[in-house]
Amino acid sequence: MLPKPIQSAIQELSKLPGIGPKSAERLVFYLFQKEDSQVKQLGEAICNLKEGIVYCERCCNLSESKLCLICDNTRREQSTICIVENPMDVFVLEATGAYTGLYHVLHGAISPLDGVGPEHLTIHQLNRRFSNETIEEIVLATNPTVTGEATAVYISRQLRQRGLRITHLAQGLPMGGQLEFADQDTLKRALMGRREVA
Amino acid sequence: MLPKPIQSAIQELSKLPGIGPKSAERLVFYLFQKEDSQVKQLGEAICNLKEGIVYCERCCNLSESKLCLICDNTRREQSTICIVENPMDVFVLEATGAYTGLYHVLHGAISPLDGVGPEHLTIHQLNRRFSNETIEEIVLATNPTVTGEATAVYISRQLRQRGLRITHLAQGLPMGGQLEFADQDTLKRALMGRREVA
Repeated sequence: MLPKPIQSAIQELSKLPGIGPKSAERLVFYLFQKEDSQVKQLGEAICNLKEGIVYCERCCNLSESKLCLICDNTRREQSTICIVENPMDVFVLEATGAYTGLYHVLHGAISPLDGVGPEHLTIHQLNRRFSNETIEEIVLATNPTVTGEATAVYISRQLRQRGLRITHLAQGLPMGGQLEFADQDTLKRALMGRREVA
Repeated sequence: MLPKPIQSAIQELSKLPGIGPKSAERLVFYLFQKEDSQVKQLGEAICNLKEGIVYCERCCNLSESKLCLICDNTRREQSTICIVENPMDVFVLEATGAYTGLYHVLHGAISPLDGVGPEHLTIHQLNRRFSNETIEEIVLATNPTVTGEATAVYISRQLRQRGLRITHLAQGLPMGGQLEFADQDTLKRALMGRREVA
């Protein structure tokens, strides 16, 4: 019943995660009321999303040149590498302003059930970095999920012989949360990782 | 820190209603992992959203030709017009399969605070329909909001002299809802509109 261009926009938008057919309809009718130029701006921004973006040849993060802005920044601590699953993780860690070292983006996590083994991640590129760089600390910052934890364990075992300092992001109660609503696993980790008050 | 094409896609997506910066980031990183062709498909569907779409010259609904598919369908009841605020309302009413008449899309509701008067809606086009069509019933299906109700009152007053049957969508408890969670206004309407059990 709806005109075809509207139908296909709804169909495409509803493929996105978290956007069901209902929200897609709403978005399309919203866009329809907007100026042509605004609609084109959004459409083109999506079309050009990948334009000129490559993977940094050092840390495998998204980049517009051979080296990403972080790897290219000589002011950053060169001896610490934080290992994350996705480019978005770099983005959120950077937003904290609490980390000044380098990154390595795995582009996934080991998940045998999904057919993702270590060979599908950028672990090979990570190993290569040890020949070119002087690395003293590895910060494991994979997600606190089954696959993320498995990946962290795999990498820490692989790197054990190198005599590095290997650390892991602290796990425990999230800020602003309430004890009574914390799940059992989180509470267990919070207890196991309890720290002495200075 | 993020590459520019990604930044601008995030910026554009976060302009959409219900999509904050966080969700926009998530969507963009999700899209980034998808095939180039899939991303282009979405982008182009949005770009072409308004391509070739006009307003139906009879009911002002969105259409790909002079007359929309509903107005062009001679099997529909020609003597009943359902008045709605937006094209999306036509879409949701059609999805019920419970209405077989024609529509008239106002493209908004009277809202003096927002500077929207009757002259900004398609009331003029509605009046014109009375000279060309034989209309017996008007179904007021504006939203059950202050502006929607005001619009319905305005239109019903305007049409009163024409000796039509003017009806209004029933207001009351929504299906699947629970009495204890219904708001006072809805309960009042449900009481006022109570019907005898057959």
